[in-house]
Amino acid sequence: MEAEKKKIAVIAFGGNALLPENQKGTFQEQQANADVAAKSILKIVQNGYGVILVHGNGPQVGQVLVQNEKSADKVPPQPLDACVASTQGTIGYILTTALRRIGKKLNNQVEPVAILTNVLVNPQDPAFQNPTKPIGSFLTAEKAQKMKDTHGWIIVEDSGRGYRRVVPSPKPQKIMESEVISQLARAGNIVIACGGGGIPVAIIDDQLVGIEGVIDKDLASSLLAEEVRADLYIILTGVPQVAINFGKENMQFISEMTVSEAEGYMAEGHFPPGSMGPKIASAIDFVKKSGQKVLITSAEKLEDALMGQSGTYIVP
Amino acid sequence: MEAEKKKIAVIAFGGNALLPENQKGTFQEQQANADVAAKSILKIVQNGYGVILVHGNGPQVGQVLVQNEKSADKVPPQPLDACVASTQGTIGYILTTALRRIGKKLNNQVEPVAILTNVLVNPQDPAFQNPTKPIGSFLTAEKAQKMKDTHGWIIVEDSGRGYRRVVPSPKPQKIMESEVISQLARAGNIVIACGGGGIPVAIIDDQLVGIEGVIDKDLASSLLAEEVRADLYIILTGVPQVAINFGKENMQFISEMTVSEAEGYMAEGHFPPGSMGPKIASAIDFVKKSGQKVLITSAEKLEDALMGQSGTYIVP
Repeated sequence: MEAEKKKIAVIAFGGNALLPENQKGTFQEQQANADVAAKSILKIVQNGYGVILVHGNGPQVGQVLVQNEKSADKVPPQPLDACVASTQGTIGYILTTALRRIGKKLNNQVEPVAILTNVLVNPQDPAFQNPTKPIGSFLTAEKAQKMKDTHGWIIVEDSGRGYRRVVPSPKPQKIMESEVISQLARAGNIVIACGGGGIPVAIIDDQLVGIEGVIDKDLASSLLAEEVRADLYIILTGVPQVAINFGKENMQFISEMTVSEAEGYMAEGHFPPGSMGPKIASAIDFVKKSGQKVLITSAEKLEDALMGQSGTYIVP
Repeated sequence: MEAEKKKIAVIAFGGNALLPENQKGTFQEQQANADVAAKSILKIVQNGYGVILVHGNGPQVGQVLVQNEKSADKVPPQPLDACVASTQGTIGYILTTALRRIGKKLNNQVEPVAILTNVLVNPQDPAFQNPTKPIGSFLTAEKAQKMKDTHGWIIVEDSGRGYRRVVPSPKPQKIMESEVISQLARAGNIVIACGGGGIPVAIIDDQLVGIEGVIDKDLASSLLAEEVRADLYIILTGVPQVAINFGKENMQFISEMTVSEAEGYMAEGHFPPGSMGPKIASAIDFVKKSGQKVLITSAEKLEDALMGQSGTYIVP
């Protein structure tokens, strides 16, 4: 372990890569999707990188919340932070097994390891005064009122579709396990970490405690990439390249842009807040703080992109 | 990390240490119990060891199985291996947070890290022909028949109390992540690993796949202690010392016994199969293969036992 010192690539992808909306969300489906993802990830390993994998968990934690809700008369429901932890376990298991299975098939034996990751947030974060992240299933007005009264849930009405719980989405301040994650990746392991943006924890009254909230995965993976001094930060998304004037006649794909070009396009409104916006913001943040590159591309085009033949690079 | 090379203590304790039968099993209860456990664990750290913590998950995986069952019409139930993985996530979270919280309080800052652990089993293990380990809740005859027909469950009748699913309990062959676990512990981290005996995986038709089964935690922790070349293997249990003629007039507590003495007592029936038996067997196995010592004691007496003033040592 001591001898080897690899370059590090941090790679982030959404929870819906394993559990897309058009599937039921069975274990078998997620396993098959993980096998496909594993092939892309192994291409980064073949390019000489120690890899850190950050996965989303939106659909998966949604499942766990429904399970908690439906069995509340038999099993005490767990707080949201514990539900995030349980998805790190399940998705970590699916990914380690897929990487070993596909690695063997491709004669590329790898040592994947999933690290349970806690992420420190600031209890003074303004997000706690203004919870915005909807989680769990839609509720009736009656059920919503009950949860508000008994559990202090903050509830919003979703136009016509019912009521939903919203939780704070505080900014990540520090990845608690980043030292270990970095060591293992530099030694050549594939490290699965910071799943679902990490489990939010905070120091309140001088005590470390869990927090019911959701940390944005793009912000958490960008911070992790900084903390481990990643050489490359890869954001996997649904499209092979970033475009300006997206969907218009003068749409133009971008192979490379500097941070200041990216900031210019951002200010001009080329990247919508719900989709590409947070990814570009997280990329800009990483490049500015680290002086290293970011690659945005799709799983399908990753191999080409690593050879500079597709994808969008954001450079200092 | 490279400079430090600590002695390793592997410490095993049951899932009911965090979720005892006389509690409801809320997160808050488990957290409070983890804080108590953390104090014991920190005493081993203070004695100069890098610590590997193996926790059981019996009551916790029971909760997850009920949650899966009760929400099956809304969320596809996960297989047992994925449920074990989810408890590694949740319990790992509870333990890392408790260790950081109590470490800070005692001015003993530690770096805990929970490693998702897969454990290889042999698909030819006779346990697969003869599933014996009951899991999940009691079922009606009708429900039992349905699960048998639709999911191929093996069902046994539990005298008068209803029907239960039984799963195989194959022997652990190899801890997939033991190299990483060993490196991190020798570097001084507190490593939480192999929770619930580990997630069972096997190579079937040349493919690594998950297995619906439960690995005995005592066997898994003993194998892990061997693989990481532990200097000390500690089994925490409900009693401060092992006794022969337990509960009889001539009951005698044992401070130290050799492997051959332990085997002799075992043959004479001093250690019942349901309780102390598997722990002594796992201890004998470790001492024989490693040439190192085992300590059996309670969490309360651990500090005294580390100083040789309580507990039972099993030596070569």
